[in-house]
Amino acid sequence: MSITVKPVEKAGVIEELQEQFGNRIKTSIGACREFGTDESFHGNFPPDAVFAPHSTEEVALAVQICSKHKFPVIPYGAGTSLEGHICALHGGLCLNMIEMNQVLQVNAEDLDVVLQPGVTRKQLNSYLKDTGLFFPIDPGADASLGGMTATRASGTNAVRYGTMRENVLSLTVVMADGRVIKTAKRSRKSSAGYDLTRLFIGSEGTLGVITEITLRVYGIPEKISSAVVAFPELDSAVHSVITTIQLGIPIARIELLDDAMMRALNKFSKLEYPEEHTLFLEFHGTEYSVQEQVEMVQMICEENGGGHFQWTTRTEERNRLWQARHDAAYAAKAMRPNAQIWATDVCVPISRLAECIMETQRDIEESNLMAPIVGHVGDGNFHLVLLVDHSDPEEEKRAQGLHERMVMRALEMEGTCTGEHGIGYGKMEFLVAEHGDSVAVMRNIKIALDPDNILNPGKIVRI
Amino acid sequence: MSITVKPVEKAGVIEELQEQFGNRIKTSIGACREFGTDESFHGNFPPDAVFAPHSTEEVALAVQICSKHKFPVIPYGAGTSLEGHICALHGGLCLNMIEMNQVLQVNAEDLDVVLQPGVTRKQLNSYLKDTGLFFPIDPGADASLGGMTATRASGTNAVRYGTMRENVLSLTVVMADGRVIKTAKRSRKSSAGYDLTRLFIGSEGTLGVITEITLRVYGIPEKISSAVVAFPELDSAVHSVITTIQLGIPIARIELLDDAMMRALNKFSKLEYPEEHTLFLEFHGTEYSVQEQVEMVQMICEENGGGHFQWTTRTEERNRLWQARHDAAYAAKAMRPNAQIWATDVCVPISRLAECIMETQRDIEESNLMAPIVGHVGDGNFHLVLLVDHSDPEEEKRAQGLHERMVMRALEMEGTCTGEHGIGYGKMEFLVAEHGDSVAVMRNIKIALDPDNILNPGKIVRI
Repeated sequence: MSITVKPVEKAGVIEELQEQFGNRIKTSIGACREFGTDESFHGNFPPDAVFAPHSTEEVALAVQICSKHKFPVIPYGAGTSLEGHICALHGGLCLNMIEMNQVLQVNAEDLDVVLQPGVTRKQLNSYLKDTGLFFPIDPGADASLGGMTATRASGTNAVRYGTMRENVLSLTVVMADGRVIKTAKRSRKSSAGYDLTRLFIGSEGTLGVITEITLRVYGIPEKISSAVVAFPELDSAVHSVITTIQLGIPIARIELLDDAMMRALNKFSKLEYPEEHTLFLEFHGTEYSVQEQVEMVQMICEENGGGHFQWTTRTEERNRLWQARHDAAYAAKAMRPNAQIWATDVCVPISRLAECIMETQRDIEESNLMAPIVGHVGDGNFHLVLLVDHSDPEEEKRAQGLHERMVMRALEMEGTCTGEHGIGYGKMEFLVAEHGDSVAVMRNIKIALDPDNILNPGKIVRI
Repeated sequence: MSITVKPVEKAGVIEELQEQFGNRIKTSIGACREFGTDESFHGNFPPDAVFAPHSTEEVALAVQICSKHKFPVIPYGAGTSLEGHICALHGGLCLNMIEMNQVLQVNAEDLDVVLQPGVTRKQLNSYLKDTGLFFPIDPGADASLGGMTATRASGTNAVRYGTMRENVLSLTVVMADGRVIKTAKRSRKSSAGYDLTRLFIGSEGTLGVITEITLRVYGIPEKISSAVVAFPELDSAVHSVITTIQLGIPIARIELLDDAMMRALNKFSKLEYPEEHTLFLEFHGTEYSVQEQVEMVQMICEENGGGHFQWTTRTEERNRLWQARHDAAYAAKAMRPNAQIWATDVCVPISRLAECIMETQRDIEESNLMAPIVGHVGDGNFHLVLLVDHSDPEEEKRAQGLHERMVMRALEMEGTCTGEHGIGYGKMEFLVAEHGDSVAVMRNIKIALDPDNILNPGKIVRI
């Protein structure tokens, strides 16, 4: 690792930052520890200082100062990442972006919005409420849109609306030397040069600091209908999903919760769903089109042995249903209060999904671990919510083995080591297992754009 | 320009290539001239040699030899580009990819295919015919899928199915030093590392040579219906498009041809459409959903003063309709046989589209030029088919002025200098006008991945 900052230099850069920004540069242990960890089990690596900028210009100035001193810069959104993305492994300045939280433009005619990276997805949707528009990407957590862009987030609506990859039109980015660039104009498509927008999406703060985002938004559908349907066999549930996707039915959400997760959910959220493998579904469209989608999917599920359909079109009930889905991790944790959640995800081609989930379930059982499964199965993406008592080294070792086997299984099935959580520093070895020589190309790009490795060092690729 | 290859070096590299590949290395003037130009008016810049590889390994070997001698390598697909993308400005080896034309896998369950870059889009669709699947991206020309990937092509179906950006899952790429990488696995989404797939899409052969492509495909819709509708006013036609998009109607194609283009088309294709501003529409879906879409769009068009709807659901008639649309450029050329076509495109946010097209039409008139307009207006993208007699320097100057004003007008409206044709060497100055400091970042990436500037030198960014 090339970054080793000597204490004396550290004092110099912080002094210079304080000269510029006064007591907005926080260095207390409390302030720094608050920004040293995310929602994962990864340790707390506090930065040396925290600064909440209010503009692109302030970010550029701060990065310029850090660049001069080769001092790490770690952008921080809502702190909801899961692979230690924002741990300050080498110290440095944490840029807490959450105060850059203005929606700058709503271009209703163009179905796009321009906003600062600290706006969270819930904040955006409540801002848009009276416009008839909404932003569909929903990773569960109320993440910041900057963080969602930086990790190429997706979530429950991706099967229909795509991921952040498909929904960001343009970014303003502060580069490692403090230069400010805009990656694209506001048009829907362009063939003008390299796709810098997509390069920064998913770069986890290692190539630049995102300070402005132009996002696609969508008209709120005329009709939304949700359903829950249970299956005695897991592979019947998955096959229902596969058929739905193959028929091109434009389903908006299609989520799987296995029997273990349903037991947890019923208990946690005081619900009374059948404790079987269950699909949570949502349909968007016109009255007609939703009815047609519903009929087709209901038929598919019934043919695969699904039953107990519970329908709802009322907003309140729908919200309760999806809140329950989003609470899955907390529900799982409540099953074993002394354990920590180790949330991990893989994604495979949908033809291999049933096989991948079922082999993983067998492995969980054989490993004598508790790990309910939830998944955005329409994309071939599923999560383990591993419940691990990290104070028990033998259990931790078993969990690591299970985790590694799950990732390698996904790779063997032409899948990826992470569908939506990202690499951070938790999955760097799996990135190498997945990409081989491509990692060298990623490293070339990192070095070209951040030659001193000051931007979120120690994440994605080793320098 | 850093590439200046001395004659003696040139002989050495060609000799070494011939030692490796025998008389498959063509160096005759005829063979080289054939690969020196595309479908645009840009001049013929023949390479020094042409080679049609049959495998990734052969490409890697050829690139290794060229790399050793710092000899340019220009990948060539079907030669249908429009900005001089494949002109060998500095000589070098043309890699004619068209013999790498095998479809390697059809993964019907996963809705994807794996193929070599020389497969053309028509070849792919005829290969898929009996599978119930199709590949929607349709730029008009029967381009190679390697070329379409390299230029981030789109075309008439992009409004519903996206562009190449959204439809490529993974690429195998030979890098400048001959290394072979795979950019991604076959899963639908991934958060694993930098998005190399998107970086190579649209890189026009300047960052690597694409040797294998994994593409999304779609089920052929149950029902397809097409229509033609004419408008007395251009802005009513455009406003019908804007309303259709804003309402989220999942229309598959929505193409505008202005009155000048309709006159040309009627004459060329012996048709009898009203010679007014006209929309060509296509709807994909179930019986019900197509009917619903049709009713909504018909109402929108009628409210905007559109009339003379001509409907067809018969495959043969539909094909004739879209063939006519695709023949637009030839039809335009037939209006002025001594002129050459200068096809150019811009793309703007849809709210500015009517304004942009109408100002451009005024400018065409005031410039006393013939330049029918066609456009993929659902994306905010439109084309001028400028008919220019290049032997008349005064006319050429007027055409250049018109072209430059059109591009600058699009940029001022937050649009792009090219929606789908790409930069090649014809639009390099406009890339700078559009992207400013971002071009320096593109240049950093180019230098990092191709330090000797051997890959299609002189395109996209100046080194």
